[in-house]
Amino acid sequence: MNTDAKFIVIEGLEGAGKTTAIQAVTRWLEQKSIEFVQTREPGGTPLAEQLRTLVKAQRDNEKVTAEAELLIMYASRVQLIENVIKPALAEGKWVVGDRHDLSSRAYQGGGRGISDELLNPIRSAVLQGFEPDLTLYLDIRPEVGLARASARGELDRIELEALTFFEKTRAKYQEIANASDNIITINAEQTIEEVQQSITLQLDQFFKS
Amino acid sequence: MNTDAKFIVIEGLEGAGKTTAIQAVTRWLEQKSIEFVQTREPGGTPLAEQLRTLVKAQRDNEKVTAEAELLIMYASRVQLIENVIKPALAEGKWVVGDRHDLSSRAYQGGGRGISDELLNPIRSAVLQGFEPDLTLYLDIRPEVGLARASARGELDRIELEALTFFEKTRAKYQEIANASDNIITINAEQTIEEVQQSITLQLDQFFKS
Repeated sequence: MNTDAKFIVIEGLEGAGKTTAIQAVTRWLEQKSIEFVQTREPGGTPLAEQLRTLVKAQRDNEKVTAEAELLIMYASRVQLIENVIKPALAEGKWVVGDRHDLSSRAYQGGGRGISDELLNPIRSAVLQGFEPDLTLYLDIRPEVGLARASARGELDRIELEALTFFEKTRAKYQEIANASDNIITINAEQTIEEVQQSITLQLDQFFKS
Repeated sequence: MNTDAKFIVIEGLEGAGKTTAIQAVTRWLEQKSIEFVQTREPGGTPLAEQLRTLVKAQRDNEKVTAEAELLIMYASRVQLIENVIKPALAEGKWVVGDRHDLSSRAYQGGGRGISDELLNPIRSAVLQGFEPDLTLYLDIRPEVGLARASARGELDRIELEALTFFEKTRAKYQEIANASDNIITINAEQTIEEVQQSITLQLDQFFKS
């Protein structure tokens, strides 16, 4: 494996501005002429995209258990890691991810309340220590993010959860981010220009060599 | 929960004769005027059936990792347990399952070689001790079972594995069955009549009251 290539992940609630954040990252990479691939989760391989469709579909006729949701997310993740992320890194390409493992910890762990006793064995069994080099967490109040997201169009099954779900999700994001050296919190309630500037600064600092 | 209702599972390799074995079980229940529901795995709920389709599909463009296969099986299983099996048992209905957890231990554990260190945390996190009251394991040599199954029509992604895959799957089935009081091995190379007779005898004995 080429140890120079890095895996950068953008995380945050719906409406936090992940798309523009990703643009800031890819522009930074392009300016340095660094080759990269982009991924999104759940999804990013044919099977993983099919799993994404299943897990996001609104279901009137069936309760989706928190455990099934979690397992589908990890099934998608392992396909992406083994078939896309690791091969790209091995070829020396950087990887820019729209969500990764932190989303499961925040949404299924924090939001759905799945305990660490259930989550951690699955995480470690699947990931076996694999993790992003840097995660940029876009922090936003749920009511602000959801207002932005709903202005964009129809919401999926998970996005239609109650506000308390997103408050618990955000609390878990913040808790993990505060405890991790390789997760940087960005204030996503700044203007787009300020967010993009923050990201560029953080990338310069984190990857200065 | 009504403690009288029981969960009976039929297990075995492709071509072991699960369908006729299930008929023997349901006939036994009907003769006793016991209400029951039938399930199959993977599958048995709308989401679980969609997962079944995804995991069985032949894929030319993507390697399905053993881990993703395992996680999809357990996502399907938890939907079925929570939405179908437990509610049926709670209403006093027996449940007759075409495959359950033992299949994952045999196929993904034995056949694919997923270690107990990876499998057991996921199993116990998802199942939390839930298990069938009785499993009837139809034991057959893979070459005999596969000859029967392929005579029936087109094989799916898992059924197209090499013979050694099914030999390892059978070895794991036998190992677990021999170590478990609530798994009974039936010689599936007997005639259909003999298999059905064995099953009726075993049910009479196991559930005598």
